[in-house]
Amino acid sequence: MKFIQSVKNPQVKQWKKLLTKKEREKTGQYMLEGFHLVETALHYKDEIVELIISEEAELPPHWNVDDIEMTMVTPEIARALSDTEAGQGVFAICRKQEFSEVLEGRTYLLIDAVQDPGNIGTMIRTADAAGLDGVILGSGCADLYNSKVLRSAQGSHFHLPIVQRPLLEVIHQLKEQGIPVFGTSLQEASDYREAEVMDAFALLVGNEGSGVDEDLLSVTDSNVFIPIYGRSESLNVAVAAGVLLYHFKQSLKNV
Amino acid sequence: MKFIQSVKNPQVKQWKKLLTKKEREKTGQYMLEGFHLVETALHYKDEIVELIISEEAELPPHWNVDDIEMTMVTPEIARALSDTEAGQGVFAICRKQEFSEVLEGRTYLLIDAVQDPGNIGTMIRTADAAGLDGVILGSGCADLYNSKVLRSAQGSHFHLPIVQRPLLEVIHQLKEQGIPVFGTSLQEASDYREAEVMDAFALLVGNEGSGVDEDLLSVTDSNVFIPIYGRSESLNVAVAAGVLLYHFKQSLKNV
Repeated sequence: MKFIQSVKNPQVKQWKKLLTKKEREKTGQYMLEGFHLVETALHYKDEIVELIISEEAELPPHWNVDDIEMTMVTPEIARALSDTEAGQGVFAICRKQEFSEVLEGRTYLLIDAVQDPGNIGTMIRTADAAGLDGVILGSGCADLYNSKVLRSAQGSHFHLPIVQRPLLEVIHQLKEQGIPVFGTSLQEASDYREAEVMDAFALLVGNEGSGVDEDLLSVTDSNVFIPIYGRSESLNVAVAAGVLLYHFKQSLKNV
Repeated sequence: MKFIQSVKNPQVKQWKKLLTKKEREKTGQYMLEGFHLVETALHYKDEIVELIISEEAELPPHWNVDDIEMTMVTPEIARALSDTEAGQGVFAICRKQEFSEVLEGRTYLLIDAVQDPGNIGTMIRTADAAGLDGVILGSGCADLYNSKVLRSAQGSHFHLPIVQRPLLEVIHQLKEQGIPVFGTSLQEASDYREAEVMDAFALLVGNEGSGVDEDLLSVTDSNVFIPIYGRSESLNVAVAAGVLLYHFKQSLKNV
Protein backbone atom coordinates (compact mmCIF):
# COMPACT_ATOMS: atom_id res chain seq x y z
CA MET A 1 0.00 0.00 0.00
CA LYS A 2 1.18 3.50 -0.80
CA PHE A 3 1.87 5.70 2.23
CA ILE A 4 1.76 9.48 1.88
CA GLN A 5 3.22 11.49 4.74
CA SER A 6 3.35 15.07 3.50
CA VAL A 7 0.35 17.36 3.35
CA LYS A 8 2.13 19.05 0.48
CA ASN A 9 2.17 15.93 -1.65
CA PRO A 10 0.56 16.80 -5.01
CA GLN A 11 -1.82 13.84 -4.66
CA VAL A 12 -3.16 15.30 -1.39
CA LYS A 13 -3.66 18.65 -3.08
CA GLN A 14 -5.54 16.94 -5.90
CA TRP A 15 -7.85 15.12 -3.47
CA LYS A 16 -8.56 18.33 -1.57
CA LYS A 17 -9.61 20.02 -4.78
CA LEU A 18 -12.50 17.54 -5.00
CA LEU A 19 -14.16 19.52 -2.23
CA THR A 20 -14.94 22.09 -4.96
CA LYS A 21 -17.72 21.64 -7.47
CA LYS A 22 -15.48 22.92 -10.24
CA GLU A 23 -12.92 20.17 -9.77
CA ARG A 24 -15.61 17.52 -9.43
CA GLU A 25 -17.04 18.59 -12.78
CA LYS A 26 -13.61 18.67 -14.39
CA THR A 27 -12.58 15.20 -13.21
CA GLY A 28 -15.97 13.47 -12.95
CA GLN A 29 -14.92 12.32 -9.47
CA TYR A 30 -15.97 13.10 -5.91
CA MET A 31 -14.93 12.20 -2.38
CA LEU A 32 -16.95 10.33 0.27
CA GLU A 33 -16.03 10.39 3.94
CA GLY A 34 -16.73 8.20 6.95
CA PHE A 35 -17.20 4.50 7.69
CA HIS A 36 -20.88 4.35 6.84
CA LEU A 37 -20.65 5.99 3.44
CA VAL A 38 -17.47 4.20 2.42
CA GLU A 39 -18.99 0.87 3.46
CA THR A 40 -22.00 1.61 1.25
CA ALA A 41 -19.65 2.52 -1.60
CA LEU A 42 -17.99 -0.91 -1.28
CA HIS A 43 -21.22 -2.42 -2.62
CA TYR A 44 -20.66 -0.35 -5.76
CA LYS A 45 -17.01 -1.17 -6.35
CA ASP A 46 -17.06 -0.18 -9.99
CA GLU A 47 -17.64 3.39 -8.90
CA ILE A 48 -14.67 3.50 -6.52
CA VAL A 49 -11.43 4.93 -7.84
CA GLU A 50 -9.48 4.47 -4.60
CA LEU A 51 -9.69 4.46 -0.81
CA ILE A 52 -7.72 6.75 1.47
CA ILE A 53 -7.17 5.56 5.02
CA SER A 54 -5.58 7.37 7.95
CA GLU A 55 -2.95 5.26 9.69
CA GLU A 56 -4.99 5.76 12.87
CA ALA A 57 -8.20 4.36 11.37
CA GLU A 58 -8.98 0.68 11.70
CA LEU A 59 -10.84 -0.94 8.83
CA PRO A 60 -13.72 -3.21 9.92
CA PRO A 61 -12.64 -6.84 9.31
CA HIS A 62 -15.76 -7.59 7.26
CA TRP A 63 -14.91 -4.99 4.62
CA ASN A 64 -14.03 -6.55 1.32
CA VAL A 65 -11.44 -4.26 -0.22
CA ASP A 66 -9.99 -6.77 -2.70
CA ASP A 67 -8.86 -5.19 -5.94
CA ILE A 68 -9.35 -1.66 -4.61
CA GLU A 69 -6.47 0.75 -4.73
CA MET A 70 -5.70 2.03 -1.23
CA THR A 71 -3.41 4.74 0.08
CA MET A 72 -2.48 5.20 3.70
CA VAL A 73 -2.05 8.77 4.94
CA THR A 74 -1.05 10.49 8.17
CA PRO A 75 -3.76 11.74 10.58
CA GLU A 76 -2.70 15.26 9.61
CA ILE A 77 -3.52 14.60 5.96
CA ALA A 78 -6.82 12.96 6.94
CA ARG A 79 -7.74 16.12 8.85
CA ALA A 80 -6.82 18.24 5.86
CA LEU A 81 -9.11 16.20 3.60
CA SER A 82 -12.03 16.16 6.02
CA ASP A 83 -14.72 18.77 6.06
CA THR A 84 -16.04 17.71 9.45
CA GLU A 85 -14.52 18.39 12.82
CA ALA A 86 -14.68 14.80 13.94
CA GLY A 87 -13.53 13.04 10.78
CA GLN A 88 -13.13 9.26 10.82
CA GLY A 89 -10.03 9.11 8.62
CA VAL A 90 -11.68 6.97 5.92
CA PHE A 91 -12.36 8.30 2.43
CA ALA A 92 -13.35 6.97 -0.98
CA ILE A 93 -12.73 8.71 -4.26
CA CYS A 94 -15.62 7.74 -6.53
CA ARG A 95 -16.65 8.28 -10.12
CA LYS A 96 -19.74 10.41 -10.67
CA GLN A 97 -22.52 8.35 -12.23
CA GLU A 98 -23.95 9.31 -15.58
CA PHE A 99 -27.63 8.54 -15.88
CA SER A 100 -29.54 8.39 -19.12
CA GLU A 101 -31.72 11.31 -20.00
CA VAL A 102 -34.65 8.95 -20.36
CA LEU A 103 -37.06 8.89 -17.46
CA GLU A 104 -38.17 5.29 -17.58
CA GLY A 105 -39.74 5.00 -14.15
CA ARG A 106 -43.15 5.94 -12.80
CA THR A 107 -42.33 7.84 -9.59
CA TYR A 108 -40.06 10.87 -9.29
CA LEU A 109 -39.12 13.66 -6.93
CA LEU A 110 -38.30 17.01 -8.57
CA ILE A 111 -36.41 19.55 -6.48
CA ASP A 112 -36.42 23.23 -7.45
CA ALA A 113 -33.75 25.55 -6.00
CA VAL A 114 -33.40 23.97 -2.57
CA GLN A 115 -30.26 25.49 -1.17
CA ASP A 116 -29.54 23.71 2.07
CA PRO A 117 -27.39 20.65 1.33
CA GLY A 118 -28.84 18.83 4.35
CA ASN A 119 -32.35 19.25 2.94
CA ILE A 120 -31.29 17.93 -0.49
CA GLY A 121 -29.52 14.92 1.02
CA THR A 122 -32.40 14.15 3.37
CA MET A 123 -34.86 14.26 0.45
CA ILE A 124 -32.71 11.87 -1.59
CA ARG A 125 -32.65 9.50 1.40
CA THR A 126 -36.44 9.80 1.73
CA ALA A 127 -37.03 9.28 -2.00
CA ASP A 128 -34.95 6.10 -1.73
CA ALA A 129 -36.88 4.93 1.35
CA ALA A 130 -40.17 5.57 -0.44
CA GLY A 131 -38.95 3.43 -3.34
CA LEU A 132 -38.98 6.17 -5.95
CA ASP A 133 -37.48 5.69 -9.40
CA GLY A 134 -35.34 8.81 -9.35
CA VAL A 135 -34.68 12.36 -8.21
CA ILE A 136 -34.22 15.36 -10.49
CA LEU A 137 -32.39 18.41 -9.20
CA GLY A 138 -33.27 21.63 -10.98
CA SER A 139 -31.32 24.86 -11.14
CA GLY A 140 -30.38 26.57 -7.89
CA CYS A 141 -30.02 23.32 -5.95
CA ALA A 142 -26.98 22.51 -3.85
CA ASP A 143 -24.62 20.23 -5.81
CA LEU A 144 -25.35 16.52 -5.44
CA TYR A 145 -21.69 15.76 -4.74
CA ASN A 146 -21.32 18.40 -2.04
CA SER A 147 -20.06 16.54 1.03
CA LYS A 148 -23.00 17.68 3.19
CA VAL A 149 -25.52 16.46 0.60
CA LEU A 150 -23.78 13.08 0.46
CA ARG A 151 -23.64 12.84 4.26
CA SER A 152 -27.37 13.52 4.67
CA ALA A 153 -28.22 11.17 1.81
CA GLN A 154 -26.52 8.36 3.76
CA GLY A 155 -25.53 6.43 0.65
CA SER A 156 -28.88 6.70 -1.12
CA HIS A 157 -27.21 8.45 -4.06
CA PHE A 158 -25.88 4.97 -4.99
CA HIS A 159 -29.36 3.47 -4.95
CA LEU A 160 -31.31 5.55 -7.39
CA PRO A 161 -30.68 7.71 -10.45
CA ILE A 162 -30.22 11.37 -9.65
CA VAL A 163 -29.89 13.85 -12.47
CA GLN A 164 -29.40 17.60 -12.60
CA ARG A 165 -31.60 19.05 -15.36
CA PRO A 166 -33.85 22.04 -16.12
CA LEU A 167 -37.18 21.21 -14.52
CA LEU A 168 -39.40 22.88 -17.11
CA GLU A 169 -38.16 20.41 -19.71
CA VAL A 170 -38.44 17.49 -17.29
CA ILE A 171 -42.04 18.35 -16.38
CA HIS A 172 -43.04 18.46 -20.04
CA GLN A 173 -41.36 15.14 -20.66
CA LEU A 174 -43.04 13.50 -17.65
CA LYS A 175 -46.43 14.78 -18.71
CA GLU A 176 -45.91 13.41 -22.21
CA GLN A 177 -45.18 10.04 -20.64
CA GLY A 178 -48.47 10.23 -18.76
CA ILE A 179 -46.94 10.84 -15.35
CA PRO A 180 -48.97 13.42 -13.42
CA VAL A 181 -46.81 16.17 -11.91
CA PHE A 182 -47.91 17.57 -8.54
CA GLY A 183 -46.45 20.90 -7.52
CA THR A 184 -46.48 22.16 -3.93
CA SER A 185 -47.79 25.60 -3.13
CA LEU A 186 -49.64 27.38 -0.38
CA GLN A 187 -51.74 29.34 -2.91
CA GLU A 188 -54.30 27.95 -5.34
CA ALA A 189 -53.60 24.41 -4.32
CA SER A 190 -55.70 21.60 -2.92
CA ASP A 191 -55.25 19.40 0.13
CA TYR A 192 -52.74 16.70 -0.79
CA ARG A 193 -55.16 13.97 0.27
CA GLU A 194 -57.43 14.96 -2.61
CA ALA A 195 -54.76 14.39 -5.26
CA GLU A 196 -55.62 11.60 -7.68
CA VAL A 197 -52.60 9.39 -7.83
CA MET A 198 -53.21 6.52 -10.20
CA ASP A 199 -50.19 4.43 -11.20
CA ALA A 200 -47.53 7.15 -11.34
CA PHE A 201 -46.58 10.52 -9.92
CA ALA A 202 -43.90 13.17 -9.86
CA LEU A 203 -43.74 15.44 -6.83
CA LEU A 204 -42.22 18.91 -7.23
CA VAL A 205 -40.93 20.73 -4.14
CA GLY A 206 -39.17 24.07 -3.96
CA ASN A 207 -36.93 26.59 -2.28
CA GLU A 208 -36.98 26.88 1.53
CA GLY A 209 -38.06 30.50 1.50
CA SER A 210 -39.87 31.17 -1.75
CA GLY A 211 -41.24 27.73 -2.63
CA VAL A 212 -41.52 26.38 -6.17
CA ASP A 213 -40.94 28.81 -9.04
CA GLU A 214 -44.22 30.21 -10.44
CA ASP A 215 -43.34 29.25 -14.00
CA LEU A 216 -43.02 25.63 -12.93
CA LEU A 217 -46.22 25.68 -10.87
CA SER A 218 -48.12 26.90 -13.91
CA VAL A 219 -47.26 23.80 -15.97
CA THR A 220 -47.90 21.09 -13.39
CA ASP A 221 -51.03 18.93 -13.56
CA SER A 222 -52.13 20.19 -10.18
CA ASN A 223 -50.71 21.74 -7.04
CA VAL A 224 -51.15 20.54 -3.48
CA PHE A 225 -50.54 21.79 0.04
CA ILE A 226 -50.22 20.16 3.45
CA PRO A 227 -52.69 21.63 5.96
CA ILE A 228 -51.20 23.52 8.88
CA TYR A 229 -53.22 22.77 12.02
CA GLY A 230 -51.17 24.86 14.41
CA ARG A 231 -49.37 28.18 14.20
CA SER A 232 -46.16 27.47 12.32
CA GLU A 233 -46.15 29.11 8.91
CA SER A 234 -44.95 26.08 7.03
CA LEU A 235 -43.13 22.78 7.22
CA ASN A 236 -39.46 22.20 6.54
CA VAL A 237 -39.17 21.19 2.84
CA ALA A 238 -37.66 17.77 3.60
CA VAL A 239 -40.41 16.99 6.12
CA ALA A 240 -43.06 18.11 3.63
CA ALA A 241 -41.50 15.93 0.93
CA GLY A 242 -41.57 12.97 3.35
CA VAL A 243 -45.25 13.40 4.20
CA LEU A 244 -46.19 13.75 0.52
CA LEU A 245 -43.97 11.01 -0.91
CA TYR A 246 -45.26 8.45 1.58
CA HIS A 247 -48.84 9.49 0.97
CA PHE A 248 -48.45 9.33 -2.83
CA LYS A 249 -46.50 6.08 -2.76
CA GLN A 250 -49.11 4.44 -0.61
CA SER A 251 -51.93 5.76 -2.82
CA LEU A 252 -50.57 4.13 -5.99
CA LYS A 253 -52.90 1.70 -7.67
CA ASN A 254 -51.77 -1.63 -9.09
CA VAL A 255 -48.17 -1.45 -8.00
CA MET B 1 -31.49 54.27 23.08
CA LYS B 2 -28.32 52.97 24.67
CA PHE B 3 -25.36 52.58 22.30
CA ILE B 4 -22.56 50.17 23.13
CA GLN B 5 -19.39 50.49 21.10
CA SER B 6 -16.86 48.27 22.82
CA VAL B 7 -16.78 44.50 22.44
CA LYS B 8 -15.27 44.46 25.91
CA ASN B 9 -18.28 46.09 27.51
CA PRO B 10 -19.43 43.83 30.38
CA GLN B 11 -22.96 43.81 28.95
CA VAL B 12 -21.66 42.34 25.68
CA LYS B 13 -19.79 39.67 27.61
CA GLN B 14 -22.95 38.83 29.52
CA TRP B 15 -24.98 38.48 26.30
CA LYS B 16 -22.33 36.24 24.77
CA LYS B 17 -22.49 33.93 27.76
CA LEU B 18 -26.08 33.15 26.80
CA LEU B 19 -24.68 31.03 23.99
CA THR B 20 -23.87 28.48 26.73
CA LYS B 21 -26.49 26.22 28.27
CA LYS B 22 -25.01 26.82 31.73
CA GLU B 23 -25.61 30.56 31.59
CA ARG B 24 -29.09 30.10 30.15
CA GLU B 25 -29.98 27.87 33.07
CA LYS B 26 -28.46 30.28 35.57
CA THR B 27 -30.27 33.34 34.26
CA GLY B 28 -33.43 31.80 32.82
CA GLN B 29 -32.77 33.79 29.65
CA TYR B 30 -31.74 33.00 26.08
CA MET B 31 -30.89 34.84 22.89
CA LEU B 32 -32.73 34.77 19.54
CA GLU B 33 -31.16 35.97 16.32
CA GLY B 34 -32.41 37.16 12.95
CA PHE B 35 -35.36 39.14 11.61
CA HIS B 36 -37.78 36.23 11.35
CA LEU B 37 -37.29 34.95 14.89
CA VAL B 38 -37.23 38.38 16.49
CA GLU B 39 -40.39 39.36 14.61
CA THR B 40 -42.10 36.25 15.96
CA ALA B 41 -40.88 37.14 19.46
CA LEU B 42 -42.55 40.55 19.13
CA HIS B 43 -45.90 38.74 19.30
CA TYR B 44 -44.85 37.51 22.73
CA LYS B 45 -43.62 40.76 24.20
CA ASP B 46 -43.89 39.61 27.78
CA GLU B 47 -41.12 37.16 27.08
CA ILE B 48 -38.73 39.75 25.67
CA VAL B 49 -36.17 41.24 28.03
CA GLU B 50 -34.56 43.49 25.43
CA LEU B 51 -33.60 43.86 21.77
CA ILE B 52 -30.08 44.33 20.48
CA ILE B 53 -29.71 46.00 17.09
CA SER B 54 -26.60 46.55 15.02
CA GLU B 55 -26.30 50.14 13.80
CA GLU B 56 -26.16 48.70 10.27
CA ALA B 57 -29.45 46.84 10.61
CA GLU B 58 -32.69 48.48 9.56
CA LEU B 59 -35.78 47.58 11.54
CA PRO B 60 -38.84 46.87 9.39
CA PRO B 61 -41.25 49.82 9.75
CA HIS B 62 -44.17 47.54 10.72
CA TRP B 63 -42.38 46.26 13.81
CA ASN B 64 -44.04 47.44 16.99
CA VAL B 65 -41.26 47.86 19.49
CA ASP B 66 -43.09 50.17 21.91
CA ASP B 67 -42.13 49.65 25.54
CA ILE B 68 -39.28 47.31 24.62
CA GLU B 69 -35.81 48.09 25.88
CA MET B 70 -33.40 48.41 22.96
CA THR B 71 -29.66 48.73 22.72
CA MET B 72 -27.75 49.69 19.62
CA VAL B 73 -24.39 48.06 19.05
CA THR B 74 -21.58 48.25 16.50
CA PRO B 75 -21.43 45.71 13.63
CA GLU B 76 -18.35 44.28 15.34
CA ILE B 77 -20.34 43.51 18.49
CA ALA B 78 -23.18 42.06 16.41
CA ARG B 79 -20.70 39.70 14.77
CA ALA B 80 -19.35 38.71 18.18
CA LEU B 81 -22.85 37.82 19.40
CA SER B 82 -23.83 35.90 16.28
CA ASP B 83 -23.25 32.23 15.87
CA THR B 84 -23.86 32.31 12.12
CA GLU B 85 -21.54 33.58 9.43
CA ALA B 86 -24.15 35.79 7.84
CA GLY B 87 -25.77 37.29 10.92
CA GLN B 88 -28.49 39.90 10.43
CA GLY B 89 -27.52 42.12 13.37
CA VAL B 90 -30.85 41.74 15.18
CA PHE B 91 -31.17 39.90 18.49
CA ALA B 92 -33.71 39.46 21.27
CA ILE B 93 -32.91 38.43 24.80
CA CYS B 94 -35.92 36.45 26.02
CA ARG B 95 -37.08 34.79 29.20
CA LYS B 96 -37.29 31.01 29.16
CA GLN B 97 -40.88 29.87 29.59
CA GLU B 98 -41.87 27.70 32.51
CA PHE B 99 -44.58 25.22 31.65
CA SER B 100 -46.64 23.37 34.18
CA GLU B 101 -45.85 19.73 34.80
CA VAL B 102 -49.44 18.84 33.99
CA LEU B 103 -50.03 17.38 30.56
CA GLU B 104 -53.49 18.69 29.84
CA GLY B 105 -53.60 18.11 26.10
CA ARG B 106 -54.39 15.06 23.99
CA THR B 107 -51.55 15.00 21.45
CA TYR B 108 -47.82 14.99 22.22
CA LEU B 109 -44.46 14.36 20.63
CA LEU B 110 -41.86 12.74 22.90
CA ILE B 111 -38.22 12.96 21.81
CA ASP B 112 -35.63 10.59 23.24
CA ALA B 113 -31.93 11.48 22.95
CA VAL B 114 -32.00 13.21 19.57
CA GLN B 115 -28.65 14.94 19.35
CA ASP B 116 -28.75 17.02 16.22
CA PRO B 117 -30.14 20.48 17.08
CA GLY B 118 -31.52 20.86 13.56
CA ASN B 119 -33.54 17.66 13.96
CA ILE B 120 -34.95 18.80 17.32
CA GLY B 121 -35.90 22.22 15.97
CA THR B 122 -37.44 20.76 12.82
CA MET B 123 -39.55 18.36 14.90
CA ILE B 124 -40.80 21.21 17.11
CA ARG B 125 -41.78 23.12 13.95
CA THR B 126 -43.56 20.01 12.61
CA ALA B 127 -45.35 19.35 15.91
CA ASP B 128 -46.59 22.93 15.79
CA ALA B 129 -47.73 22.57 12.16
CA ALA B 130 -49.56 19.36 13.03
CA GLY B 131 -51.35 21.20 15.82
CA LEU B 132 -49.97 19.14 18.68
CA ASP B 133 -50.47 20.13 22.32
CA GLY B 134 -46.83 19.92 23.30
CA VAL B 135 -43.37 18.44 22.92
CA ILE B 136 -41.42 16.66 25.63
CA LEU B 137 -37.65 16.42 25.35
CA GLY B 138 -36.12 13.52 27.26
CA SER B 139 -32.56 13.09 28.41
CA GLY B 140 -29.78 13.23 25.84
CA CYS B 141 -31.57 15.77 23.64
CA ALA B 142 -29.92 18.95 22.40
CA ASP B 143 -30.95 21.90 24.59
CA LEU B 144 -34.14 23.63 23.49
CA TYR B 145 -32.53 27.06 23.75
CA ASN B 146 -29.48 26.12 21.67
CA SER B 147 -29.38 28.66 18.84
CA LYS B 148 -29.50 25.96 16.14
CA VAL B 149 -32.59 24.38 17.71
CA LEU B 150 -34.30 27.76 17.83
CA ARG B 151 -33.34 28.55 14.23
CA SER B 152 -34.76 25.28 12.89
CA ALA B 153 -37.88 25.63 15.04
CA GLN B 154 -38.60 28.96 13.26
CA GLY B 155 -40.43 30.46 16.23
CA SER B 156 -42.59 27.41 17.01
CA HIS B 157 -41.11 27.26 20.53
CA PHE B 158 -43.34 30.27 21.27
CA HIS B 159 -46.44 28.46 20.03
CA LEU B 160 -46.59 25.32 22.10
CA PRO B 161 -45.41 24.09 25.49
CA ILE B 162 -42.07 22.32 25.38
CA VAL B 163 -40.74 20.69 28.51
CA GLN B 164 -37.57 18.79 29.29
CA ARG B 165 -38.44 15.78 31.49
CA PRO B 166 -37.56 12.11 32.03
CA LEU B 167 -39.61 10.22 29.46
CA LEU B 168 -40.27 7.10 31.53
CA GLU B 169 -42.22 9.22 33.98
CA VAL B 170 -44.00 11.10 31.20
CA ILE B 171 -45.06 7.88 29.44
CA HIS B 172 -46.57 6.52 32.66
CA GLN B 173 -48.41 9.77 33.25
CA LEU B 174 -49.78 9.88 29.70
CA LYS B 175 -50.98 6.29 29.93
CA GLU B 176 -52.74 7.04 33.22
CA GLN B 177 -54.52 9.87 31.46
CA GLY B 178 -55.67 7.46 28.77
CA ILE B 179 -53.39 8.76 26.05
CA PRO B 180 -51.94 5.88 24.01
CA VAL B 181 -48.19 6.11 23.56
CA PHE B 182 -46.74 4.87 20.25
CA GLY B 183 -43.04 4.13 20.16
CA THR B 184 -41.06 3.87 16.94
CA SER B 185 -38.88 0.86 16.30
CA LEU B 186 -37.73 -1.29 13.41
CA GLN B 187 -38.08 -4.46 15.50
CA GLU B 188 -41.26 -5.97 16.91
CA ALA B 189 -43.35 -3.13 15.63
CA SER B 190 -46.31 -2.88 13.30
CA ASP B 191 -46.94 -0.75 10.22
CA TYR B 192 -47.92 2.73 11.42
CA ARG B 193 -51.10 2.62 9.34
CA GLU B 194 -52.40 -0.15 11.58
CA ALA B 195 -52.11 1.90 14.77
CA GLU B 196 -55.45 2.59 16.44
CA VAL B 197 -55.54 6.28 17.12
CA MET B 198 -58.80 7.20 18.81
CA ASP B 199 -59.05 10.69 20.30
CA ALA B 200 -55.48 11.11 21.56
CA PHE B 201 -51.90 9.99 20.95
CA ALA B 202 -48.33 10.49 22.01
CA LEU B 203 -45.60 9.66 19.51
CA LEU B 204 -42.16 8.69 20.80
CA VAL B 205 -39.15 9.04 18.48
CA GLY B 206 -35.51 8.42 19.28
CA ASN B 207 -31.84 8.88 18.68
CA GLU B 208 -30.56 9.21 15.09
CA GLY B 209 -28.31 6.17 15.35
CA SER B 210 -29.71 3.88 18.01
CA GLY B 211 -33.41 4.76 17.97
CA VAL B 212 -35.63 4.87 21.05
CA ASP B 213 -34.21 3.44 24.27
CA GLU B 214 -35.34 -0.18 24.88
CA ASP B 215 -36.60 0.61 28.38
CA LEU B 216 -38.94 3.20 26.94
CA LEU B 217 -40.11 0.95 24.08
CA SER B 218 -41.07 -1.70 26.62
CA VAL B 219 -43.59 0.55 28.37
CA THR B 220 -45.35 2.07 25.35
CA ASP B 221 -48.82 0.91 24.33
CA SER B 222 -47.50 -0.27 20.99
CA ASN B 223 -44.62 0.36 18.63
CA VAL B 224 -44.79 1.25 14.97
CA PHE B 225 -42.49 1.47 11.96
CA ILE B 226 -42.62 3.18 8.58
CA PRO B 227 -42.13 0.73 5.71
CA ILE B 228 -39.00 1.18 3.62
CA TYR B 229 -39.83 0.49 -0.04
CA GLY B 230 -36.37 1.17 -1.44
CA ARG B 231 -32.87 0.54 -0.26
CA SER B 232 -32.13 3.20 2.34
CA GLU B 233 -31.81 1.73 5.80
CA SER B 234 -34.04 4.24 7.50
CA LEU B 235 -35.56 7.69 7.37
CA ASN B 236 -34.18 10.82 8.97
CA VAL B 237 -35.83 11.12 12.40
CA ALA B 238 -37.46 14.49 11.64
CA VAL B 239 -38.90 13.17 8.36
CA ALA B 240 -40.21 10.05 10.13
CA ALA B 241 -41.80 12.23 12.83
CA GLY B 242 -43.48 14.30 10.10
CA VAL B 243 -44.94 11.28 8.31
CA LEU B 244 -46.22 9.81 11.60
CA LEU B 245 -47.54 13.02 13.18
CA TYR B 246 -49.56 13.92 10.10
CA HIS B 247 -50.92 10.40 9.82
CA PHE B 248 -51.89 10.27 13.50
CA LYS B 249 -53.32 13.77 13.54
CA GLN B 250 -55.45 13.02 10.51
CA SER B 251 -56.61 9.71 12.03
CA LEU B 252 -58.01 11.32 15.19
CA LYS B 253 -61.71 10.71 15.79
CA ASN B 254 -64.07 13.43 16.97
CA VAL B 255 -61.57 16.23 17.05
